[in-house]
Formats: sequence, C-alpha cells, structure tokens
Amino acid sequence: MKLAVLGVGLIGGSIGLAARERLDAEVAGFDPDADTGNRAAELGAIDRVATGIGDACRDAEIVFCSAPVGVLPDLLAEALAATGPETAVTDVGSTKREVVARAGSEPRFVGGHPIAGAETSGVDNARADLFEGARWYLTPTERTSGLLYDRVQRAVSSLGARPQAIDPDAHDRVLASVSHLPHVLANVLVGQAAGELSRAEGRLPGVGPSFRDSARVAGANHAIWRDIFISNREAVAAEIDGVIDRLREARDLISSSDGPGVQAWIEEARENRRRLLEQELTGGPVCELRITVPNRPGVVAEIALELGRAGVNIEDMALYPAEDMASGAVTLWIAGTEDADRAQRLLETLDLAVIRIESPG
Amino acid sequence: MKLAVLGVGLIGGSIGLAARERLDAEVAGFDPDADTGNRAAELGAIDRVATGIGDACRDAEIVFCSAPVGVLPDLLAEALAATGPETAVTDVGSTKREVVARAGSEPRFVGGHPIAGAETSGVDNARADLFEGARWYLTPTERTSGLLYDRVQRAVSSLGARPQAIDPDAHDRVLASVSHLPHVLANVLVGQAAGELSRAEGRLPGVGPSFRDSARVAGANHAIWRDIFISNREAVAAEIDGVIDRLREARDLISSSDGPGVQAWIEEARENRRRLLEQELTGGPVCELRITVPNRPGVVAEIALELGRAGVNIEDMALYPAEDMASGAVTLWIAGTEDADRAQRLLETLDLAVIRIESPG
Repeated sequence: MKLAVLGVGLIGGSIGLAARERLDAEVAGFDPDADTGNRAAELGAIDRVATGIGDACRDAEIVFCSAPVGVLPDLLAEALAATGPETAVTDVGSTKREVVARAGSEPRFVGGHPIAGAETSGVDNARADLFEGARWYLTPTERTSGLLYDRVQRAVSSLGARPQAIDPDAHDRVLASVSHLPHVLANVLVGQAAGELSRAEGRLPGVGPSFRDSARVAGANHAIWRDIFISNREAVAAEIDGVIDRLREARDLISSSDGPGVQAWIEEARENRRRLLEQELTGGPVCELRITVPNRPGVVAEIALELGRAGVNIEDMALYPAEDMASGAVTLWIAGTEDADRAQRLLETLDLAVIRIESPG
Repeated sequence: MKLAVLGVGLIGGSIGLAARERLDAEVAGFDPDADTGNRAAELGAIDRVATGIGDACRDAEIVFCSAPVGVLPDLLAEALAATGPETAVTDVGSTKREVVARAGSEPRFVGGHPIAGAETSGVDNARADLFEGARWYLTPTERTSGLLYDRVQRAVSSLGARPQAIDPDAHDRVLASVSHLPHVLANVLVGQAAGELSRAEGRLPGVGPSFRDSARVAGANHAIWRDIFISNREAVAAEIDGVIDRLREARDLISSSDGPGVQAWIEEARENRRRLLEQELTGGPVCELRITVPNRPGVVAEIALELGRAGVNIEDMALYPAEDMASGAVTLWIAGTEDADRAQRLLETLDLAVIRIESPG
C-alpha cells in the first residue's frame, strides 16, 4: 500500500512508523521544514522525502494531512488538487467543522482525528504504537465515497486505533468538553495558583499530586492550541459558560456549609467519572454483521454515523460491491454482544437486512 | 521512641509503618473501627491495638491524630486531655485554621498536614514510604513549645517527609488553590462532559488522556472531601470566584478569535506551570546554621514561620537549651546554598547571631 504523509511531526511521523511496520506500506513524506522531513526519513518514519506535495501524493492510496489546524484547510485543498479519483485524502486535525465545511463536499475527503499524543511533539517523539487502542474519529458526510471511507477506516484500524464515525459538529462539541475544556481549566488553574502565591509574597508552595495531574497540559504547545481554541471557539465558549454555571453552584453549596448537598455533589461526580471512563473499556466477543446495501454514495457514511451516534464501535468493516454495481455487501465487526445487538437493531430500523455471525469466543 | 496513632487508615497506618521501620518506634494505635485497628496490627503498622484514646496515648512522646477533618477538633481535645506536659500532639488534617483556632493556644499542639496519599484510602494501602520526599506542613503558633515543635519536625523528617512551617491561614489559602480547587474543577469537568453527552443522546464518548488526568480526583472520597470543602469554605469560595473571572477572560479571548492574545495566554500558563512545578525540586549541598536564641516560648515557631514564609525548607533542626535556661542554641540544616543565604539574611533581620558551617559537598 502506498501512503503519503504531509507534515511529519509527532502524529505524521507516528503514522509513517506504524504504517511501515504494520501495513508494510511504502510511505512518502513531505514537510515544509526540510530538516523535519530528513529527520523523519532518518528515523524510518518515511521511505522517502518528497520534494513537494505533488511528489508526495503521486500514486498514494491515502494521503494523511497532519498539519496544525490553522493551515489544514489549505493543505487539504492542495492535497485534493494533487490527487486523482482513486486517492482518499484524510487529516488528523483536532477540530472538524471547519475542514469539513471546506472539503466535505469532495467524495474523496474523509475527516479524521486520532485521540493521541498530547504530551510531546516533534518527529523525534514519534512511535509506531502511538495509536494503539486510541479512539480515531472519522467524519464522513453524505457525499463521502463508501469505498474510500472503508479504505481509510481499515488503515486507521491497522495502525492500532479504534475508528469511530461521528458527525463533525458533534465531534467538535464532544471534543470541546473532553479535550479543549481540560486544557482551558489547566491554564486557568495554574494562573490562579500562581496568582495566589504572588499575593502571599513568598515563593510558590509545594503542590500536591492532584495539582500536578490537573496542570499537566497547562501551556501545551501554544501554536497548536491557539489554532484549536479559535477554530472551535463557539463550542469552547459554550463549554466554558457551562463550567462557570457549575462552579457557581458548587461555590454556593460549599459556602452554605450544606454537608449533604456537598456530599451528593461529590457522589454525582464519582458516578459521572465512572461512566465516562468506562467507555474506554471495550471487550467481549467480536460479532460479524453482514448487510446488503444499495450501492449509492453516502450509504456507508449513513451506517457508520448511525452506529457512531449510538456509541457502537466498529472494530472493522469491509465493502464488497456486487457485480451489477447497483448493490453491495458490507460486513461489520462489532466487539461485545450488547453492542452487536444495538447495531443490529439500528441497522434494521434503516431497512437493511442483517445476517449475524457470532464468532466462536 | 513511643508514639500513638489515633486513626489507623491510609495516613495513620503509613505513619505507623514508617515510624516502626525508620525510627524504630514503638507504636500504639487506636481506631474507632475495631476491625481497622486489628488489621493495622496484622499489617505491622502498629505494635499494639489500644483499648481507647487514653490507653493509646500512655507514655507517648508524640500523638498523631489522623481522622477526617470533621472530627479532628474533638479528637485533638481528647488527645490533649489524655496526655501530660511532655507529650506533643499533632494532626494530619487537610485544613488547619479550624483546628488551630481550637487547639492552637495549647503549647503542646503542633498542627500538621502531609501532602500525600490522595488516590487510595484504607490501612490496606498504607506504605512505609508514603511520605518519602513529600511536603509536610506544620503550623506552630506563638504559643507552641519549641522543644515539642522540634520533636514533631524531626519525627516527620525521619518518616521521609520535608517539613515546612506555615501560618494556618496561609496554609488553608494555599491548599485551597493547589489542592481543593483541582478537586472542585475535576468534579465540575466530569459533570460538564456527562451533561454534554446526555444532550447528544448517544453514549458517552471516548475521552482523551488530558481528560483522564484532569478527572482523576473527581468524586474522591466523599466523606473526607465534604469535610475539607466545608472546613475551608471561605478560601475555596474565593478560589472558585477567582477561577470564574479567569474563565470569563479566557472565553472572551477565544470568542473574539484573538490569536496573539490566546497565544500569550497559553504561554503565560506554560510559565506558571514551570514555576509551580519547579518548587518541587530541591537540591544542592546542605548548610548548617547555628543560632543562639532567647529561651522563650514562640521563638522556634517564629524562626520556622519566617523561613517557611520565604519558602526556605528546613531539612532538619535541633534545639539545645543552655544550662541557665535563659537562652538556647538552635541548629538548622538548609538544602542549597541560595536557600541558606536567604535563611541567614532573614535570621539576621530577626537580630539573631548566625554561625554558618558549610558541609563538605
């Protein structure tokens, strides 16, 4: 398989390493910074350093655009212009609404976002196992080619990630709450603590483990995060407003010495945390669902999004167009009997005939 | 050395284990829950299970009260009543203003608070190395006996911790910002994310590493934290108000797409985080400072607090009353030449004559 990676930092470099190791792929890489490109080749993240975007994309089956959010829309446009009808173009940007608005009408574009690699940056920190077990959101639209979506989803899965289809707006709202908001809170927390201490006229105090954890992402890569916050400003602002309301409630509870109220508030947080973290665990036997579908654009996206909305994780997917090209077969692999049940019911409400094959444990 | 530990859960049990291992202490323990007391003995955290507070405190040189913040004031009063003029009584509560208001006029009471053990609870998780390298705040007052303060500070240091004297009000303000506030933010964050997702009518999304870190302490032990929040309600409410102001500023910056402003805000957070975490690192040669002091109550607290306020960490301390009992000698060990310089200057401004002895490396 031939791949192109445009931007070979932490994420792009890790895609290259993982694709070469796990997909036996031939990877061409291009980076606007020539040193970064050469270093990626030196580290074995890419097979060759391309001379430009066109050169990198030549014959590529998938082009991964992994640049900061601020320059992604232009880079995607260039990658789409440089490639023909057989090439899928995807990205790894942390926000999806803007890029899908720009490129989403193009059947060959599949928006993507791996949830990985927050702590470090640069190709020197790239690792072949960076995506192991990580969620990788994909944002197909009704225009997306089913075949090319399938190709991207399989590739992502082969890199070790767990792909999940999601609507771009929902993606940006969800990420605002589970990723962008923690970064805002970390930045605010360190500001507050530093402010407290400068008032005390002493040196800053020793901080505890809870502070260290909460502050870990404070001040994370300012260029990347500036673009993310601004690109997703509406959803981030809404999340901040929600947090302000919740903080006011918490302050009032605490200030009024309302013991049972404070305790109930903490218990609710415990339960919320449990529910949120439980989502990370998948398991159970993998079930195979076979579906015959009309061969029209958008049907794969429709299936993937419907399951994604319901929180059902598609472990793998295969598409087989029938010879008449008017219909096709889709096979989905779903982990866990319960999720497979949900998926089957959902697909049946879409008027699709489902054949279910249980794996032998 | 004979010690009593009242309350033998995670912290009390770890004090027992560390004291037996490192101080060769004989530890009597009492817990209102008989099973917990017996389990502590079984695990080697205490030498004997006492039949009550009086029995535990008999002949103890130091009594460690390690109960939840809500019951500490009463427990301290009982421990002080059960012991004579030669016994120091200390506690490990997470807030200090209330207990010092209750017991601070008693020369034998030394308020304490080790910064350790947030994640687990119960004597089964007790460890002899729980306090290794951990900050352990002590809150002497002008009434505190210098000799007994010295005894507690040495014991704490022998348990592996780094004692630091601090004013009780300052302690509660600092802890509100570096410990209680992260807990409030974690609780609010999981509530916000769970709320976001229930609106989406799907299941909760996969969360990223930044969320996991930020949410780690959400819903932490509700009985303990209910008491901490309420005991420190004024400082916690002030911190929450500070955070609300900062969040409003962040939202306005982000909403207005102010790129340079957002970037400067992130860079400031990075710098604040660096300054806060740097405090964790100590180092350099240990210097010895010898001081002759008038032998009057409060002089040791005065020295310890003055250095604590300046952020100078006293690695160890020794007190030698002179034979005339009108004066005495205090020896302090300070890590790092720079801190020793600061300490020497501060002591000289208190009109104390200081002799400095550099250690050989």
